[in-house]
Amino acid sequence: MRIEVRQNILARNDEAAAANRALLASHDVTLVNLMAAPGAGKTSVIMGTIEELRSRVGIAVIEGDIASEVDSLAIEAMDIPAIQINTGGGCHLNAGMIGTALEHLDLEALDMIIIENVGNLVCPAEFDLGEESRILITSVTEGHDKPYKYPQIFRVADAVLINKVDLLPYCDFDMARFRELVLGLNPGASLFEVSCTEERGLAAWTAWLASAVGRVG
Amino acid sequence: MRIEVRQNILARNDEAAAANRALLASHDVTLVNLMAAPGAGKTSVIMGTIEELRSRVGIAVIEGDIASEVDSLAIEAMDIPAIQINTGGGCHLNAGMIGTALEHLDLEALDMIIIENVGNLVCPAEFDLGEESRILITSVTEGHDKPYKYPQIFRVADAVLINKVDLLPYCDFDMARFRELVLGLNPGASLFEVSCTEERGLAAWTAWLASAVGRVG
Repeated sequence: MRIEVRQNILARNDEAAAANRALLASHDVTLVNLMAAPGAGKTSVIMGTIEELRSRVGIAVIEGDIASEVDSLAIEAMDIPAIQINTGGGCHLNAGMIGTALEHLDLEALDMIIIENVGNLVCPAEFDLGEESRILITSVTEGHDKPYKYPQIFRVADAVLINKVDLLPYCDFDMARFRELVLGLNPGASLFEVSCTEERGLAAWTAWLASAVGRVG
Repeated sequence: MRIEVRQNILARNDEAAAANRALLASHDVTLVNLMAAPGAGKTSVIMGTIEELRSRVGIAVIEGDIASEVDSLAIEAMDIPAIQINTGGGCHLNAGMIGTALEHLDLEALDMIIIENVGNLVCPAEFDLGEESRILITSVTEGHDKPYKYPQIFRVADAVLINKVDLLPYCDFDMARFRELVLGLNPGASLFEVSCTEERGLAAWTAWLASAVGRVG
């Protein structure tokens, strides 16, 4: 019984995701779904990515949170369009929420929309939002064992950003082991080591992102 | 429609939680539900807590994860009974899962059972497992803005552990602001600053825990 309910929810979500995908394709806009645990640095990565790409890519951001609008206010302070979605308790965004947000953006003026999903390594992996790329951010402070515990989100990611590498000297994080675990689950994943605090590694990541979404130079 | 389904799920869960609570009361065993984001240090806190209390409190652990049994193996290596629950995609434990785990523990030999919930700051806050205390662990690397974004889990916590304080010199974490936000949501919460790496703050936390569950000295 619960399985049927769940299947219905996912089927309805897939229909809404297909509609988002068609709408975005008609405007030549790329949708990027950024997922991570709470506190991994999603907003900092988005802000760093905007700084790297804004001169050549028209960007907007959709912020997903249980509550609050602190993240969308931070993005708007950069003079970038930002839509805040508060899920009111929901642990992930769904395609219908994104469809509603898209109605409030000027798609003709945009090349890329970055979604900051709710901080959660579980359910966001299951809900297609109509995106072209799925990005997972992990931070070295979370430990290198996360691929064991949350395998699905590592499997569906096109790229994995390993954030907060400036804290590596103070953490028990085995980078070689982490890379091995990630690539064991997802051999095609691109991995990037970054530090938003020290602005390290963002150029390589954003070059990949611009290329992946067909917005090179 | 979705709301009704959700209400039914929560009502069934509450029945199972009440059964767990009655069973544990009849054996004079205290159940503690430990919640946190992925990588906040739940397993390290549990291991440190066991070391502090094992001489006077009979402890077992129930480990919840999407997949893997790395955490229960670590606990068993300490010669402490550990039951691993793999949710197979579910983003939280429910009371029925805990009821099944309790069948596999010798309740007469125990004083306290610590549950390590799935790493998630959202859904675990909504599911009563039959516990006496709810503990939230956050780490300073996650940032001090988490109470804004995940208010419900801060509201339901009896105690909040602020872990990884050894990393404070390297993080942009405002402790006074964090405490203010937590106590604004939950004036009765007890807060403890700890570092499992440097074994700091564990004595105060475990003294509170032993007292809260009526297992003083």
